Amino acid sequence: MTDAAVRPRKPATSKRTPAGGAPTAPHTAEQAHESRIDIDAVTDLLLGTWAATRREAREMVKNPAFWRIDGQPMAEHRERVLEQLHLLVEHGGSRRAYPEEYGGLNDNGANVAAYLELVLADPSLQVKAGVQWGLFGSAIHHLGTKPHHDKWLRDVMNLKIPGAFAMTETGHGSDVAAVGTTATYDLDTEEFVIHTPFRGAWKDYLGNAALHGRAATVFAQLISGGVNYGVHCFFVPLRDEQGDFLPGIGGEDDGVKGGLNGIDNGRLHFDQVRIPRENLLNRYGDIAPDGTYSSEIASPGRRFFTMLGALVQGRVCIEGAATNATALALKIAVTYANQRRQFDSGSGSDEVVLLDYAKHQRRLLPRLAEVYAQHFAGDELIQKFDGVFSGRKDTPDEREDLETLAAALKAMSTWNALDTIQECREACGGSGFLAENRLVGLHQDLDVYATFEGDNTVLLQLVGKRLLSDFAKQFKGADAAKLARFAVGQTAGRVFHGAGLRQLGQAVTDFGSTARSVELGLRADQQHDLLSGRVQQMVSDVAGRLRPAAKLAPAAAAALFNENQSELIEAARAHAELLQWEALTDGVNRAGDEGTREVLTWLRDLFGLSLIEKHLAWHLIHGRLSTQRAASVSRYIDRLCARLRPHAQDLVDAFGFEPEHVRAPIASGAEQDRQQEAREYYAALAASGTAPVSEKSLKKK
Amino acid sequence: MTDAAVRPRKPATSKRTPAGGAPTAPHTAEQAHESRIDIDAVTDLLLGTWAATRREAREMVKNPAFWRIDGQPMAEHRERVLEQLHLLVEHGGSRRAYPEEYGGLNDNGANVAAYLELVLADPSLQVKAGVQWGLFGSAIHHLGTKPHHDKWLRDVMNLKIPGAFAMTETGHGSDVAAVGTTATYDLDTEEFVIHTPFRGAWKDYLGNAALHGRAATVFAQLISGGVNYGVHCFFVPLRDEQGDFLPGIGGEDDGVKGGLNGIDNGRLHFDQVRIPRENLLNRYGDIAPDGTYSSEIASPGRRFFTMLGALVQGRVCIEGAATNATALALKIAVTYANQRRQFDSGSGSDEVVLLDYAKHQRRLLPRLAEVYAQHFAGDELIQKFDGVFSGRKDTPDEREDLETLAAALKAMSTWNALDTIQECREACGGSGFLAENRLVGLHQDLDVYATFEGDNTVLLQLVGKRLLSDFAKQFKGADAAKLARFAVGQTAGRVFHGAGLRQLGQAVTDFGSTARSVELGLRADQQHDLLSGRVQQMVSDVAGRLRPAAKLAPAAAAALFNENQSELIEAARAHAELLQWEALTDGVNRAGDEGTREVLTWLRDLFGLSLIEKHLAWHLIHGRLSTQRAASVSRYIDRLCARLRPHAQDLVDAFGFEPEHVRAPIASGAEQDRQQEAREYYAALAASGTAPVSEKSLKKK
Repeated sequence: MTDAAVRPRKPATSKRTPAGGAPTAPHTAEQAHESRIDIDAVTDLLLGTWAATRREAREMVKNPAFWRIDGQPMAEHRERVLEQLHLLVEHGGSRRAYPEEYGGLNDNGANVAAYLELVLADPSLQVKAGVQWGLFGSAIHHLGTKPHHDKWLRDVMNLKIPGAFAMTETGHGSDVAAVGTTATYDLDTEEFVIHTPFRGAWKDYLGNAALHGRAATVFAQLISGGVNYGVHCFFVPLRDEQGDFLPGIGGEDDGVKGGLNGIDNGRLHFDQVRIPRENLLNRYGDIAPDGTYSSEIASPGRRFFTMLGALVQGRVCIEGAATNATALALKIAVTYANQRRQFDSGSGSDEVVLLDYAKHQRRLLPRLAEVYAQHFAGDELIQKFDGVFSGRKDTPDEREDLETLAAALKAMSTWNALDTIQECREACGGSGFLAENRLVGLHQDLDVYATFEGDNTVLLQLVGKRLLSDFAKQFKGADAAKLARFAVGQTAGRVFHGAGLRQLGQAVTDFGSTARSVELGLRADQQHDLLSGRVQQMVSDVAGRLRPAAKLAPAAAAALFNENQSELIEAARAHAELLQWEALTDGVNRAGDEGTREVLTWLRDLFGLSLIEKHLAWHLIHGRLSTQRAASVSRYIDRLCARLRPHAQDLVDAFGFEPEHVRAPIASGAEQDRQQEAREYYAALAASGTAPVSEKSLKKK
Repeated sequence: MTDAAVRPRKPATSKRTPAGGAPTAPHTAEQAHESRIDIDAVTDLLLGTWAATRREAREMVKNPAFWRIDGQPMAEHRERVLEQLHLLVEHGGSRRAYPEEYGGLNDNGANVAAYLELVLADPSLQVKAGVQWGLFGSAIHHLGTKPHHDKWLRDVMNLKIPGAFAMTETGHGSDVAAVGTTATYDLDTEEFVIHTPFRGAWKDYLGNAALHGRAATVFAQLISGGVNYGVHCFFVPLRDEQGDFLPGIGGEDDGVKGGLNGIDNGRLHFDQVRIPRENLLNRYGDIAPDGTYSSEIASPGRRFFTMLGALVQGRVCIEGAATNATALALKIAVTYANQRRQFDSGSGSDEVVLLDYAKHQRRLLPRLAEVYAQHFAGDELIQKFDGVFSGRKDTPDEREDLETLAAALKAMSTWNALDTIQECREACGGSGFLAENRLVGLHQDLDVYATFEGDNTVLLQLVGKRLLSDFAKQFKGADAAKLARFAVGQTAGRVFHGAGLRQLGQAVTDFGSTARSVELGLRADQQHDLLSGRVQQMVSDVAGRLRPAAKLAPAAAAALFNENQSELIEAARAHAELLQWEALTDGVNRAGDEGTREVLTWLRDLFGLSLIEKHLAWHLIHGRLSTQRAASVSRYIDRLCARLRPHAQDLVDAFGFEPEHVRAPIASGAEQDRQQEAREYYAALAASGTAPVSEKSLKKK
């Protein structure tokens, strides 16, 4: 049963005002007598540092050859995406990150920027390209050395060697250090023997493994002379020219997935497969012909993390792609909400536009603010990535910061993509469930972003541990009095200073003039105090509770850590939220004209207040907000939503998507046309004098 | 890049204790030295009043012919589901709700109970069956009269006439009263002329419309003698024996959807299609041959809602099916979490089982408590539905209560299905993304449950309005003093008494002995006070703010209502949560043995405290909880999770699913087998003396 009306109402024909009544609220900046944002300028801001490259990539994916075809059978979809990868090569889309001597452009930032636009065409294309050039190729590039580059990089770039990135196993995903696959050095033949000792050690979920992969970068325990030197990466040929597995190699197709079915994910196993000694990607560790191991990094733990860190690009890309897809979903849902009408307003005027409903504003506009924040935070992430990988700012600290930032933002963006796309889907009702309107496809394809390239929960725990270790450094050798002072929260201003993350109290260039802030109660600096105070307090609290761990037996220490796991993860999330808020604030302050800055400041306030509302109980319990002030937060948000409502269309238009990127019929204006046709029908009927009267009016007579 | 480890660790081979160490926490009731729940008895409790029918239906769907095939192309899937419907007919699955004189069983409760098990086989099967027998057939049954029953019910039951339920239009979904399709009575021929006046009035999203429907129950504005009598339902033949549209009828396929692709949803339009006068389903309104309209219900508004109310069964079914699917997802994710291990504990023992992680407990166990609550609340809903539709308790009040309860619980269960299935999917990592493990398919198919059969947001608004009107009745003519007393919240105990919803302070038979409650702080009666006090206060607050509306012009009144829309919807949600909590409490108290009751009471406490935690800021702001007590709520929840952890497997096993219902390889024990194999491999290696030593141990030498 489709729904009952919300309230009893007059029969349909009598209630209509032929030409449509006044809207219940201003729909545009002009109607609201407010400055309109400079849409093009905001697009520039959102596209960020590599705007030109992003525009170039967007132009490229206007070609329908790159688009996903809904309902295409898996086998055909896989072949189509493979062809799209070849098309990408033709367009020069595969070479941006690679060294110039192999035909690359050596431009890491631009590479990521271009890459994240592929999601608009088909997330399968994006992810399969990521497997080929961001993982498989990157492993050769960043874990290998010149002989490897000379041998394979050109063929990786031009897709002569499609490859799989064979890290995850059925039995070990997040815990890469524990993979079961072995690479045992055979002194006699100067070969490595790659072997899968049991079913749990099969490589699994690998793109390019089921069908197209000719080779793989395989992560395995390097064993030489009876010693295990930990996980290293090896180049292993998989298939011959006919596409058949080479001797000793087997596999399985992962079959149908929740999404990304244009990618041939599969499993691989190795039965004593021999590869030359030189196939060890030996940037961080090598085996001499005589079996001697050497590495420039003495600590096995640090070596392992350095190798993983070299592959951080995947997370940077995923973060940006998720943000881009979320923006697309909001473009579709807000456009539709601005055209679709349902139920008359009870005031005898036309039916109400969905976005005029306060609840509908509440559902969509805070998410719009969040995705704006993601854009600015994401651009900072790419900048940091580019700094490290270009070598311009390649220090161990910068690398560690990059990894922490990527972990934090990847978790936030990918989760928000799922939440927001789902909200957009529901906000579009039945039409949102049709594949042609794209929201369901985006959700299905992006679903796995939350757990691949690092499970989000594990990533946030990683961030939390980083926060704890910064905290510990700060208070190394501190006496009880210093800690007590800190616990009071007054001297905490620069706890995370030097952590390389955004430095609290420093990095935000300007909170904006207080006059521009919309509410008296919680201006920018107060939002910042609440958000940053929460991070500091949470980390300090968890650290305090974990202090006894040092004196406990390992099992008891692990149990104590476990008791605080949820809160540590929450602290990491709070930290990521703060980073996003700060990035948004900086971004807003870069807006050129006053009118634009004003509207974007409301958006920033909406983001800040939404974060505060989300954690309102925490702020109350910790005495950061009075109950009176806390009680007003939700009302502030309602008012900000109403205030931003006339600017909503401009704000989603500023994402800069063109019809070839949007493609959803419900965001095409078709809905508006249908309403116009209906209106004209009723108007003509009324003019003809043959319109039926209502039963009610009859009774009155 | 798959994830980095959470902390530096020893290389894989050296850290393993061959036989597996002690778990970090008890995994079973026995290990915890606690009573184990009586699983079979809890299954009986959960299956509820119609347990026998549910078991019968579950037995039937163990037949693989009913199962969804992942990745099946849409066209084949549609044909398969049609065949499954015929199979259902053979099994007597289509006749339970229909009158005995046509071969039915006249058993409404059993019909719903059996129906909601179909979701385990394939949600497409469930929903297509719902279209045929719950909507199309129900419309004939409940909106038609004996001649209609004589003519069509048998063929509806045996699927000789597959039919569409043509209510929703492209332009009007939630607002059914405003549909554009007209049914104009032609006095000369004694026919109705069914007509689609414009594109927005095309019927849309209808199951059975694209391919299989031979007829439809079409909702249209009934016009006779120049008067519009509002929306009525008509039986309209669609296709001939060859499956071709009859003259004047056209349509379109809705194409690929986000899920439920075994159903042929489509659009229909009518160009002056003539049907006999007798095809008006005339239970609530009729046209005499001379064009005179008559109805036993004088008010057009009440008549409209009575007609819609006759079709409430759809929501009752959806509610239960969503609960069942959610339980299945939890069965899969909890079973996997109880077997899967990742990262060693740091204490030198075996790797840690996922469900031992506090965060993993937090992700899954409160959801387990919620779905238990849904089972008990859902059974009460079916009871109420059965009471009304059997005629045993068919009063206008009971009908209104049924509709409100169905609206509230349908919204809660379908949203929770999406949230929980998604959490389960993520909790299973990459394996959760494989179609074979079912979680992604369940999410995709159930996605639209949140917006069909009544958009959830609109439904909650409906519930909110009902609460407001109960509130208004209570205070009709009340003086300021009485209202003031109420506002203080002390005399509010029975505000909703007489509303037919669960009667506050009465219906919960027993909160259980306080000794059984796990925490000193928030026992059952205190949970109840907080949850019920919140509903009362929220409704009272919104009512107070809406009071001036009566004196305002319509547009201003509408604007005032709009300002309070979000909070009214929140009040409705709070009310639904209370209903679920009360149903769970009653259900727990029906458990036979003390040990079972104890564990279920912890589960109830977990549900109650989770609800309180979710709205903690509200309780603080309104002075219902001190900050000190509020601060302890999250810790209580953590401890309850740890307490329930050893019982988690028992609690999901109590859903009573058999392997043919679960079907997910990750919940089959395969993971455990793989780990056992790995463990044996390492044990044999260690025993052989050839195991590689770690690099670290080498350095120590």
